[in-house]
Amino acid sequence: MAVQSVESSTTPSASGAFGPAVALSCRECGERFELGPIFACEACFGPLEVAYELPAGDPEGLRRRIETGPNSIWRYAPLLPVPADVAELPSLNPGFTQLVKADNLARELGVTGELHIKDDSGNPTHSFKDRVVAIAVQAARTFGFTTLSCSSTGNLAGAVGAAAARAGFRSCVFIPHDLEAGKVVMAAVYGGELVGIEGNYDDVNRFCSELIGDPAGEGWGFVNVNLRPYYGEGSKTLAYEICEQLGWRLPDQIVVPIASGSQLTKIDKGLKELIAIGLVEDRPYKIFGAQAEGCSPVSAAFKAGHDVVRPQKPRTIAKSLAIGNPADGPYVLDIARRTGGAVEDVNDEQIVDAIKLLARTEGIFAETAGGVTVGVTKKLIEDGLLDPSLTTVVLNTGDGLKTLDAVAPTTGPSAIIRPTLDSFREAGLA
Amino acid sequence: MAVQSVESSTTPSASGAFGPAVALSCRECGERFELGPIFACEACFGPLEVAYELPAGDPEGLRRRIETGPNSIWRYAPLLPVPADVAELPSLNPGFTQLVKADNLARELGVTGELHIKDDSGNPTHSFKDRVVAIAVQAARTFGFTTLSCSSTGNLAGAVGAAAARAGFRSCVFIPHDLEAGKVVMAAVYGGELVGIEGNYDDVNRFCSELIGDPAGEGWGFVNVNLRPYYGEGSKTLAYEICEQLGWRLPDQIVVPIASGSQLTKIDKGLKELIAIGLVEDRPYKIFGAQAEGCSPVSAAFKAGHDVVRPQKPRTIAKSLAIGNPADGPYVLDIARRTGGAVEDVNDEQIVDAIKLLARTEGIFAETAGGVTVGVTKKLIEDGLLDPSLTTVVLNTGDGLKTLDAVAPTTGPSAIIRPTLDSFREAGLA
Repeated sequence: MAVQSVESSTTPSASGAFGPAVALSCRECGERFELGPIFACEACFGPLEVAYELPAGDPEGLRRRIETGPNSIWRYAPLLPVPADVAELPSLNPGFTQLVKADNLARELGVTGELHIKDDSGNPTHSFKDRVVAIAVQAARTFGFTTLSCSSTGNLAGAVGAAAARAGFRSCVFIPHDLEAGKVVMAAVYGGELVGIEGNYDDVNRFCSELIGDPAGEGWGFVNVNLRPYYGEGSKTLAYEICEQLGWRLPDQIVVPIASGSQLTKIDKGLKELIAIGLVEDRPYKIFGAQAEGCSPVSAAFKAGHDVVRPQKPRTIAKSLAIGNPADGPYVLDIARRTGGAVEDVNDEQIVDAIKLLARTEGIFAETAGGVTVGVTKKLIEDGLLDPSLTTVVLNTGDGLKTLDAVAPTTGPSAIIRPTLDSFREAGLA
Repeated sequence: MAVQSVESSTTPSASGAFGPAVALSCRECGERFELGPIFACEACFGPLEVAYELPAGDPEGLRRRIETGPNSIWRYAPLLPVPADVAELPSLNPGFTQLVKADNLARELGVTGELHIKDDSGNPTHSFKDRVVAIAVQAARTFGFTTLSCSSTGNLAGAVGAAAARAGFRSCVFIPHDLEAGKVVMAAVYGGELVGIEGNYDDVNRFCSELIGDPAGEGWGFVNVNLRPYYGEGSKTLAYEICEQLGWRLPDQIVVPIASGSQLTKIDKGLKELIAIGLVEDRPYKIFGAQAEGCSPVSAAFKAGHDVVRPQKPRTIAKSLAIGNPADGPYVLDIARRTGGAVEDVNDEQIVDAIKLLARTEGIFAETAGGVTVGVTKKLIEDGLLDPSLTTVVLNTGDGLKTLDAVAPTTGPSAIIRPTLDSFREAGLA
């Protein structure tokens, strides 16, 4: 299936369903393949990613085209593996979420430069997963899949269910059977099939890999398996938006949560693309990775100076980051080291404190993953690894309403009173 | 405090803190007052609303200015009681939420015209309350209040807590002490004072009215009491956005939920303003009100042909609409009758069915209030009161994650299986 001449812009894919994407290329050996529903290199089993011929020569024209485009990730269609008319097809239209200038938080953390929160809780199902799923849905459409599927611990299941409903796909998503009730409702309400698996997330994943090879899984697009190369590209849009919202400028430092590590690697890819096509000035930037102490395989490897990531058994309240064997771990280590960043972790108590700190300073109620990035930012500043005088962007990738349990035990009324002024005064609130 | 010459654009308010707003005027007797933290007419005790000198004479220029403005309600600053530089002040920057073309839902409902959902779950705290609070915060800033407050059953408490945190106000909000745990967490997490009142929402309200007249409440801005005239104007932005997102065109029909009724009246006000300043063509539009059967005082009055609204004791799952004695009820009746609309209600089962219908057709998970509007839309079509061949906009004002209990009992996995292909086949899912 390997092809030799995919660089030619005369291939149907270059002008059609995949926009500027021209091939899949292996991240390990560089072998190229036609754009298809495949995810591993036939030669070396390395992961595949989308390769492009990006628009060059007229950065001003491209910038104008983007700025007058839709208020969603589709404004970046010229840089994504999607057709030019993608915004006219049914989609949840995620993205272009707020970049919040966090002056109150900056004061608390001793940041004298600019501090921004990229708040992805504003997406349609309130996590960054809507971005990646939107690209996967478009690929599924092109490949003729009729069922969308995934393995998930919550956010992704909801994102797939919702996107499938809007786009007219059947969906069948798989979750561990013992998830919190709220996440189950969110995953089921969109009317697709929701299957609880007696086992943990690893069991769910293994089952999905089996199903893909079975006739029962024919015609199924698993967004995070056989559509993964396309899916992953959705995370690039975080980099694009951050730079555009900073006035077409690279941040000096960016703090990204690590689950599989894919998001961090795609943000780096997106920043490099913007430099290459001249949409931002080429300047150094540092990428920092953030993990929970209870699932910190990449942080541990970074600190130990290792190139390989030793798997861990996750035990943290940051369940959306609880991947003990992160597929992109080694790439994350490369990027953190190459850019002069770091990988750090915080414990559950620090995560909860950071969720509350962000809420009380900026009015943003983050999920546990947002507590991880804010907590790690604080720690990196204290340890002198993150320069508080520069422009820093911290990602919040999800919504506190989905992880209420993390803060509920320590978050409640200041007082319960009778409906009288006397009772109000007695409570010391006047 | 009544003034005679507020129409003059040389008053400080006209060019300053309140933008194009020039006075408060009584909706009953028309008496005018200086812009201040007052809410009832000194002459007749009628409710006060903001009166404007709106920009006239250059609709094209205004339209351009709006279209190049921020992606929030502040793009409409020239039409709101806020200063021209409001977007530079700390705010949650709500609004400009998606208007979703709901083709799948249209098919299910037999709508042959355009059907759109205005999805306000995309706001920062996931309800339309962020719009009204943002305007109230700006007024509080101008009046020198240092504490923001409200009585609330949930959505408003969260919106005030978050907005106060970002804008640098102290907050102290009041709720019935026995609210659902999730709503309590959401209201408390932003770090302001949250006070549970031993009593129901009416008791909370009564207590707040007492507090406003007491020295203990000095310097306090109650967004839905002494800041209510400004607060209410936030709902106009729904009308502005809908028309802009339709390509500067009035919808033929719009379905709005009724709690106090304020939102519906302000949407009508907004549409009339757009016509008056020439931003949309003057054409007839119909406004429909939607209530839950268990709290349907306005619907009951509409059907009985009454001008007065008889209070009810609420008993419905649509708690954010459960106001038994809606202050703006009579105005809603006027508007529904004047525009040729109607007021209708649906029962709890129909609300749940409508939440699920919207989720499975469009991937939008609405709170119970969204179930009310979608359910009422269905009923109005069946009864021949809403024309399915025209352009219709239905409001979803909140987020399903906040009212999980409504759908949880009937929403869950299709199957629980072992992680094997055999188990998958046995479940009949292959």
